[in-house]
Amino acid sequence: MADPRFFAASGPFTVAEIAARTGARIGGAATPERLLRDVAPLQTAGIEALSFFDNVKYRDEFARTRAGAVLAHPKMAAQAPAGLCLLLTEKPYRAYAAAAQMFYPVAPVVSGIAPTATIDPSARIGDGTAIGPHAVIGARVEIGRQCRIGANSVIGEGSTIGDDTRIDDNVSVSHAVIGARVRLFPGVRIGQDGFGFSADAEGFVKIPQLGRVIIEDGVEIGANSTVDRGAGPDTIIGAGTMIDNLVQVGHNVQIGRNCIFAGMVGISGSTKFGDFVMVGGQAGFAGHLTIGRGARISAQAGVMKDVADGETVGGTPALPLREAMRQALALKKLTGKGGA
Amino acid sequence: MADPRFFAASGPFTVAEIAARTGARIGGAATPERLLRDVAPLQTAGIEALSFFDNVKYRDEFARTRAGAVLAHPKMAAQAPAGLCLLLTEKPYRAYAAAAQMFYPVAPVVSGIAPTATIDPSARIGDGTAIGPHAVIGARVEIGRQCRIGANSVIGEGSTIGDDTRIDDNVSVSHAVIGARVRLFPGVRIGQDGFGFSADAEGFVKIPQLGRVIIEDGVEIGANSTVDRGAGPDTIIGAGTMIDNLVQVGHNVQIGRNCIFAGMVGISGSTKFGDFVMVGGQAGFAGHLTIGRGARISAQAGVMKDVADGETVGGTPALPLREAMRQALALKKLTGKGGA
Amino acid sequence: MADPRFFAASGPFTVAEIAARTGARIGGAATPERLLRDVAPLQTAGIEALSFFDNVKYRDEFARTRAGAVLAHPKMAAQAPAGLCLLLTEKPYRAYAAAAQMFYPVAPVVSGIAPTATIDPSARIGDGTAIGPHAVIGARVEIGRQCRIGANSVIGEGSTIGDDTRIDDNVSVSHAVIGARVRLFPGVRIGQDGFGFSADAEGFVKIPQLGRVIIEDGVEIGANSTVDRGAGPDTIIGAGTMIDNLVQVGHNVQIGRNCIFAGMVGISGSTKFGDFVMVGGQAGFAGHLTIGRGARISAQAGVMKDVADGETVGGTPALPLREAMRQALALKKLTGKGGA
Repeated sequence: MADPRFFAASGPFTVAEIAARTGARIGGAATPERLLRDVAPLQTAGIEALSFFDNVKYRDEFARTRAGAVLAHPKMAAQAPAGLCLLLTEKPYRAYAAAAQMFYPVAPVVSGIAPTATIDPSARIGDGTAIGPHAVIGARVEIGRQCRIGANSVIGEGSTIGDDTRIDDNVSVSHAVIGARVRLFPGVRIGQDGFGFSADAEGFVKIPQLGRVIIEDGVEIGANSTVDRGAGPDTIIGAGTMIDNLVQVGHNVQIGRNCIFAGMVGISGSTKFGDFVMVGGQAGFAGHLTIGRGARISAQAGVMKDVADGETVGGTPALPLREAMRQALALKKLTGKGGA
Repeated sequence: MADPRFFAASGPFTVAEIAARTGARIGGAATPERLLRDVAPLQTAGIEALSFFDNVKYRDEFARTRAGAVLAHPKMAAQAPAGLCLLLTEKPYRAYAAAAQMFYPVAPVVSGIAPTATIDPSARIGDGTAIGPHAVIGARVEIGRQCRIGANSVIGEGSTIGDDTRIDDNVSVSHAVIGARVRLFPGVRIGQDGFGFSADAEGFVKIPQLGRVIIEDGVEIGANSTVDRGAGPDTIIGAGTMIDNLVQVGHNVQIGRNCIFAGMVGISGSTKFGDFVMVGGQAGFAGHLTIGRGARISAQAGVMKDVADGETVGGTPALPLREAMRQALALKKLTGKGGA
Repeated sequence: MADPRFFAASGPFTVAEIAARTGARIGGAATPERLLRDVAPLQTAGIEALSFFDNVKYRDEFARTRAGAVLAHPKMAAQAPAGLCLLLTEKPYRAYAAAAQMFYPVAPVVSGIAPTATIDPSARIGDGTAIGPHAVIGARVEIGRQCRIGANSVIGEGSTIGDDTRIDDNVSVSHAVIGARVRLFPGVRIGQDGFGFSADAEGFVKIPQLGRVIIEDGVEIGANSTVDRGAGPDTIIGAGTMIDNLVQVGHNVQIGRNCIFAGMVGISGSTKFGDFVMVGGQAGFAGHLTIGRGARISAQAGVMKDVADGETVGGTPALPLREAMRQALALKKLTGKGGA
């Protein structure tokens, strides 16, 4: 059960209610009226908890679980222990997400402005918004309704923030136009100067960075990630895109909608991404590239050329994954032949 | 045009004034008296904007631009659209940097100490310096003139900061001797203990970290980068060096003058860099290496040996670039022969 | 000598006292009654300073040192300059650590709560604990004795912190159970939501992240590192583990005791580590892996499979180090034969 010091569960809900909300079909040793009070992993779930089975690595835990009900794919039903109530669905993880949100809905914002916050008189704060202790809100900032600005965060002058956006503690924002339902995790840095200067034997001359950061609706940006503002064009992060921790987004980068960037990805300036791109952890991108819609980039890849729509690439320098795997295999054979 | 919520343009300036300041020669459909009010990228610049053309990738944008004038290399003049006023120079990007600084000079510091800042009585603050809300200035800190210390930043006891240095919001500084005209971007961490301990089967014993961080004049350090203080010797960053976001500089590292480190570079303890070294993003360095003057390190390289003056290396483990490319080509041929 | 603006040395101590504390044997030109007032590197140590010699790279510095005494391995004694007092030990670096702690003991906490801190009335703060300016302590937080909470740090509601733990400036903690003698360096982020959502063609659904972060006794976590809380299970960092700067620990990760993670390592969700694992800088781990006790992972390795107890792996995808080296050698031979 989730630690009550940190989480308060709603509910209980019956198996039938959960089936109705998630669209799953009740199967196995069906107990539609059973009350479930929580969600839990397979190995720790008790008779009052809902769990899910979505990764075959956890097959043994599934076979031994004591959960009150388990969301699982129909083809896994045969492996369930006798007596287990199943909630069968083609997408167990998605259904679990919906069910877990029933038990643990996002807490509503408790509005109010901390007396220790420093707010410029020209800033406009929407109804129902909460601003934490020692937060700093600059001149002409506009913040929407039901937002939450964390403690010790700083919103620089002129930035705008849409409704239902949550900015966590110790965040810095400047030169930004932020949409609705955005989430910035602790330590995120938005809007600082890009890494722009002219470098030659005479030394460096800084280029004024005159663009903004545009963050569209529903974007999430993980802890301690950094997004530089544009140099002239804007840096843009498309609606619904999810960015993990410690990611670097350079100036003028344009990211499409519903992309996923795992942790520690680095994107050099002016590279553009289509929609639905997925990028593995620690991958890096040279500047001025075009990465096509639906492309997939392996973890730690070093992408130095454009990537076509729907293509999957890996390695450094990144190649189509089939080619990268062919090279790895050739190398293995080479040493297998008594090589070194 | 730059968003007036964030940027206020100086000017206007005539084409002739810009030519004079940048050293460019007026060419193409010369209009020396035309008034320019802003800078803009080729694709969005209107008749009152100055632009630049420096990367052949943007050739089409150059051919179609409606800019009032464009800084370009003389050899590109033939590709300009008819009627375009050119400002011809061998170094268009450098000239653009200078011109953009005419339109958007760095705003002067508005001095003043926020009433919510916490400043030790023994600290000395120079004339014209601004200290933001909730900043914390420790005992015996010395800050020069015309500096800016951002909101919620912390300057630990004994540290010194030269004139015209700007430390942004949410920065932590300790054990540091910082020069003039330095810029630390949001979330930078300077001066914490290095990763120093004796490790063996008996467990770990911490090594007291007794050095400092010396940051020389004109250095810039990007958002959320970290610089550990020395263990005994100091960690040193030479004058004019530019460091991008999310870079890690280990204890005792010595960096020369005018080096460039792109984002997410990691430098292990006690490695030394000569002047004018350029390092690509996500490259990593083992400890106790010597990287020669003018060396160039490719993005994602893993440098495990010393690098000679002027050498270019890439790959993991890093090799002279010619050798690394030879290996990549050999591998490609191997699989091309029907390999796997 | 360490800069007195930042460090105050205890002592002096005689060579004999240092020998007694470190277990070293006095040798070379023995001067057991000599007073030593400080520690210093070989190249700068004067007659009143203790130094150490542990890396053959610094052989020349050892041969020329003017230190008052040097901790060194007995087999290096022959290379010492005439007249140098030696402190001979099998583990010079470990002995140096102990000696340096004699000269520079950790300063005791000066208790007191800054008047500008924001502390919830329901929080409990132990005796002797110091809380810095503008720190924010949430509801029901429990902090032990002799702790230090830095300026502008935020401890979220319900979190608990053991005795003698030090949390530096600008840190964010939530959903965390933190042990005794833990150190969190500036800018660390603990307890934010993991990167958990169901992603498919219908879009993303967030998974409520219902676990905690458990940080056991004696753990250290470097500047700007991030540790996500568990999704249901907890994220756990075992006692005595050392984590460097800019490391990412994903949700549900379990790390054993006395592990070492160098800077910029990335760990995807649900990967488990045994005790005494050592990981080089910028290495990355896929999710749901098991890394055995005492395994060693090379810098920049990309680990995509389980690693057995005691195994050493490197490269991307990571292979047993012998195999990775064999491949590198084969490739070198291939190009050496006139390849490209």
